Amino acid sequence: MNIAIVGSSGYTGGELMRILLNHPKVTVTAITSEKSAGKPITSVFPHLAGLTSLVCEPLDPDTISKKSDFVFLALPHVTAQEAAFRFHLLGKNVVDLSADYRLSDPAVYATWYEHTHQYPELLKQAVYGLPELYREKIKKASLIANPGCYPTSAILGLAPLMHKGRIDPGSIIIDSKSGVSGAGRSPSLAHHYPEVNEGFMAYKVGTHRHMPEIEQELSSLAGKQVTVSFTPHLVPMNRGILTTIYAKQKSPVVTDQLHVWYQDFYQDAPFVRLLPVGQFPNVRNVRGSNFCDIGVYADPRTGRAVVVTAIDNLVKGASGQAIQNMNLMMGYDEAEGLRFAGVFP
Amino acid sequence: MNIAIVGSSGYTGGELMRILLNHPKVTVTAITSEKSAGKPITSVFPHLAGLTSLVCEPLDPDTISKKSDFVFLALPHVTAQEAAFRFHLLGKNVVDLSADYRLSDPAVYATWYEHTHQYPELLKQAVYGLPELYREKIKKASLIANPGCYPTSAILGLAPLMHKGRIDPGSIIIDSKSGVSGAGRSPSLAHHYPEVNEGFMAYKVGTHRHMPEIEQELSSLAGKQVTVSFTPHLVPMNRGILTTIYAKQKSPVVTDQLHVWYQDFYQDAPFVRLLPVGQFPNVRNVRGSNFCDIGVYADPRTGRAVVVTAIDNLVKGASGQAIQNMNLMMGYDEAEGLRFAGVFP
Amino acid sequence: MNIAIVGSSGYTGGELMRILLNHPKVTVTAITSEKSAGKPITSVFPHLAGLTSLVCEPLDPDTISKKSDFVFLALPHVTAQEAAFRFHLLGKNVVDLSADYRLSDPAVYATWYEHTHQYPELLKQAVYGLPELYREKIKKASLIANPGCYPTSAILGLAPLMHKGRIDPGSIIIDSKSGVSGAGRSPSLAHHYPEVNEGFMAYKVGTHRHMPEIEQELSSLAGKQVTVSFTPHLVPMNRGILTTIYAKQKSPVVTDQLHVWYQDFYQDAPFVRLLPVGQFPNVRNVRGSNFCDIGVYADPRTGRAVVVTAIDNLVKGASGQAIQNMNLMMGYDEAEGLRFAGVFP
Amino acid sequence: MNIAIVGSSGYTGGELMRILLNHPKVTVTAITSEKSAGKPITSVFPHLAGLTSLVCEPLDPDTISKKSDFVFLALPHVTAQEAAFRFHLLGKNVVDLSADYRLSDPAVYATWYEHTHQYPELLKQAVYGLPELYREKIKKASLIANPGCYPTSAILGLAPLMHKGRIDPGSIIIDSKSGVSGAGRSPSLAHHYPEVNEGFMAYKVGTHRHMPEIEQELSSLAGKQVTVSFTPHLVPMNRGILTTIYAKQKSPVVTDQLHVWYQDFYQDAPFVRLLPVGQFPNVRNVRGSNFCDIGVYADPRTGRAVVVTAIDNLVKGASGQAIQNMNLMMGYDEAEGLRFAGVFP
Repeated sequence: MNIAIVGSSGYTGGELMRILLNHPKVTVTAITSEKSAGKPITSVFPHLAGLTSLVCEPLDPDTISKKSDFVFLALPHVTAQEAAFRFHLLGKNVVDLSADYRLSDPAVYATWYEHTHQYPELLKQAVYGLPELYREKIKKASLIANPGCYPTSAILGLAPLMHKGRIDPGSIIIDSKSGVSGAGRSPSLAHHYPEVNEGFMAYKVGTHRHMPEIEQELSSLAGKQVTVSFTPHLVPMNRGILTTIYAKQKSPVVTDQLHVWYQDFYQDAPFVRLLPVGQFPNVRNVRGSNFCDIGVYADPRTGRAVVVTAIDNLVKGASGQAIQNMNLMMGYDEAEGLRFAGVFP
Repeated sequence: MNIAIVGSSGYTGGELMRILLNHPKVTVTAITSEKSAGKPITSVFPHLAGLTSLVCEPLDPDTISKKSDFVFLALPHVTAQEAAFRFHLLGKNVVDLSADYRLSDPAVYATWYEHTHQYPELLKQAVYGLPELYREKIKKASLIANPGCYPTSAILGLAPLMHKGRIDPGSIIIDSKSGVSGAGRSPSLAHHYPEVNEGFMAYKVGTHRHMPEIEQELSSLAGKQVTVSFTPHLVPMNRGILTTIYAKQKSPVVTDQLHVWYQDFYQDAPFVRLLPVGQFPNVRNVRGSNFCDIGVYADPRTGRAVVVTAIDNLVKGASGQAIQNMNLMMGYDEAEGLRFAGVFP
Repeated sequence: MNIAIVGSSGYTGGELMRILLNHPKVTVTAITSEKSAGKPITSVFPHLAGLTSLVCEPLDPDTISKKSDFVFLALPHVTAQEAAFRFHLLGKNVVDLSADYRLSDPAVYATWYEHTHQYPELLKQAVYGLPELYREKIKKASLIANPGCYPTSAILGLAPLMHKGRIDPGSIIIDSKSGVSGAGRSPSLAHHYPEVNEGFMAYKVGTHRHMPEIEQELSSLAGKQVTVSFTPHLVPMNRGILTTIYAKQKSPVVTDQLHVWYQDFYQDAPFVRLLPVGQFPNVRNVRGSNFCDIGVYADPRTGRAVVVTAIDNLVKGASGQAIQNMNLMMGYDEAEGLRFAGVFP
Repeated sequence: MNIAIVGSSGYTGGELMRILLNHPKVTVTAITSEKSAGKPITSVFPHLAGLTSLVCEPLDPDTISKKSDFVFLALPHVTAQEAAFRFHLLGKNVVDLSADYRLSDPAVYATWYEHTHQYPELLKQAVYGLPELYREKIKKASLIANPGCYPTSAILGLAPLMHKGRIDPGSIIIDSKSGVSGAGRSPSLAHHYPEVNEGFMAYKVGTHRHMPEIEQELSSLAGKQVTVSFTPHLVPMNRGILTTIYAKQKSPVVTDQLHVWYQDFYQDAPFVRLLPVGQFPNVRNVRGSNFCDIGVYADPRTGRAVVVTAIDNLVKGASGQAIQNMNLMMGYDEAEGLRFAGVFP
């Protein structure tokens, strides 16, 4: 199958390339970048040298569609709206890595992203691409809204408990810590090396755009509106999100019981690795891979469940998950091209 | 005044040296280290070369007492118990940087530190050395239990709200992130460079020894037993603790009101810097300094107060605070020798 | 083909596992570790969880030989001597990642490694496993001495010039900078996180054990004894070696000419990527991959050639190169299982 | 004495503030920043909060001159030319931290900085502010060209040998490694956190602007034109330069002899710390301080001298050295306000 990567010069574009170059079922045949149009992708990503001779081209949906059967959109939000629409109209399967088709309610989108959604009809058809929750829907979808990195880490950590209705939905606190690649590849003072290195901070406390996305999915699992506290933090490292989740159990159980529920819930999920009781994840163990590692703890002192998840924000939190979605849409093995270990150390 | 630093080869010992060498009122006259006895401190800490010619000696309280009027104990817990007792008996003022005299209930100490406290009578006389709470008591004390790094960051973040009785004490969640120097200077696989760098993890979830210390102080502020969720995390950086605190407000207020309470509470605290509304701290801004930066947020969506604090774990979280305590005990200006900016970047 | 990894708990053992798990021609069937015997390798390397269920066993050559056709030795030097001998005697093909069979002169080995070589006869049969120089010999070898990380970076940088006889062999200066994983996985104060992070140092100036290995190969290329200045440095990063090489040209040429010579020399080397004139390598672009990136500069002001090379010390500098050697020995495509991009960022 | 810092929002401006706030003889009375005019400096540098209430103002030489007796220029090159001229005309003592007055030959300046020097007369009066070489001249100067960071590390490493005429001036190779703050505070892709972290590269090989500055000073010491190979590298750390220098000895001596020469040469230099024979510097030990640590090695195999130096690029490589120059110009103790240890770890 021929693949187009639209918006190939950002970090998620680079990761799509890295993984798809070794995917046995597909060939990347077109890549776009406005600012690098005409240049080989290896001038943008020298780590790909020797593995591809693809050249960036401007985004022209008709041209791209002729070269490819399946389109990944790695564009900024708002920009992706129309691209998804155009490629969909041209009959292509699309995985959109931006936020544009994640929020099912256009009004919520407008509030948080400060733009009106131009394609509310298409929005209705989009499927939220978290395979662990929506595997069957994804298989039939033609437009996937690939989840955000923070939401992936939060929702996978909470889904088993929400699903079982074991926690007080009003008590959820999500404290997330992300590596810097999550902020993208555009230089800014906030992400200038000496400003970040040997620093650590919380940002957008209570106001981050991934919050409504998390709440949408948790509400869906809970069957009622859920409101959470969500705080993202910036960690001086390139990749990875560790999310620490606290929630009041309705009737407290022991850690072993929690562990069984998680095991049951994720037994068919090839990329969720539930750690043994007493162990907690470290982002270093998922770096470069599509795994989500999860550790659980039932705190007998407070009655809370504490769940810790780790993903690579660029893989399970973006490009790897996008490919996992493609695999499902195309009827390939869900793990095709993604069965590789992270790079440690 | 002549100062002894007992246990000078660890990171807190090094920080005591660094700061005291420039303190206008004191002279370091004796330093001890069993394993480096006979060696100049500059062989242990080459960054001090050119500034001191002190030589490490073994810990003999009588000898040390003859050379010094004031003793800082930078020993491991359990070991510090007897050293504090001996120096106290010899009439010296003591600041103990270990955990040995922090927990007022010897039974709690025995549970968490797995040793019986040998000096329960002396324990009763020890004052918990958090100047922002116990300034007057510290001035009269002869033995100070210098607070732990995590507790300093947590208690300073919660004290104004606990003091005012504005939050539900059962709702407190403390999510802390620490640089690696907090783990001390002894090599271990867990803190071997390639294991830590580009990693991020939670550890001792719900079981860290600083939890009872935090709860003791919060309970004292609340006037009743407080139980918290406390999760420490390891950040790939040398110094700094950022603590994110969540607590349910009894009757929610706006951030401006929260901010006023914090301003009032800390108006006379020279080392607490309350950030303007809308700003949150970054450990990079306190690196190497004795400041504790605090940002507050009243979340209108959840009714929670979210408080973020940042300290340098080796300074306000250890050696700087120890010197602040010494200043108070000796009647010096509280900020003497500590009025310096951190090192940024 | 069935593979054994002897000494699987160090970083090079982990890298062999990571790469071989995706190698289409082989299966890892036995792994050894004395200290982790009986434990699953995933307890030593959690990043491999979900991809293998191999359990470590003690090193017993007879047992291991029954399970495997090909043996990688990832043992410390001296220890590897006998293991190589035993497996060789049992008729196995062996790639030894230690230094034990790299120095062809046992006297030189004894001087630098402070042990007498016990198997000088076998030493004669060993082939130095740098495919770019010894491809044909490697194809016929049964025991490969896999090159050291620093030597790989230095020799690949100098070979084209030495081969052409264009530089004064007495003028060579090799200034290398390595990530910390090169020091192995055993904790030590020198590699304790806070000691390394935000630090940079030279070490073993003029006395590093990789120096005789570099000189042996350069002498062989020059056809006479070559003595170099070699200085290793420690960089606060996990992986990667960047080596900057200076050498006086016998009769100075322009950079374009230098570039042509390198292009010619490496035209059939699948893992050497010669950068365009004016560009110099960055270790970030080879991280996790088997590539060696090279940039060249003919300095018109000094008449020196300046060559900069970058490798991942654990891949092209160790485990990747070992697998490249295995591919050659077994008649597989040289790049089999190694055609993947590094992980950037 | 009243001090003005012109260009206070960059890293060197911040360091001038940090150090001068604790300097017993001076008060900072004016600071300028075009883009932050009207804002408190603590909004630009939050680490200074609680220590100063200075507000940035636009650069107007007349206004600034009324408020201050001594001016530090922390402006970009070219811009500093006129500022120095104006303040000099107004009778102020000036230390210029830019490159504008470092190269005594205007033609060389024009070649490397691509601008004609507008004030060649003033250029003649400027003194190169390396106290270890020009202490007496500095005491009488009214305009100091504060040395570049790389040149400081290189010249201090070579001066004793050049002075003694013990090395072949044509054989000098200077391999420098710098932390990222050396690139300034303006964001760029090259210094975006994920691009730098876990990377290491050489840049501007043979073409860096600090090369003519190094050669000017070495030529002056040698009494004839010296041409060097100079390669800067970027290290993933905030601060520090380590420079490794290689030079052929005219008649080789042993390390002990080298060491004696360095000891003699620097016996009156309060900020040069010559390490014991066998030890080499680490930038971590000078971080935040004004020290230059030096280690020397006479390689018996090659006859080369190998010298390694470490400085903090923002302190001894910029702001600290500027203050050291001020101390000399004003007749203060050379080390006034600079006698503090670095921050380790």
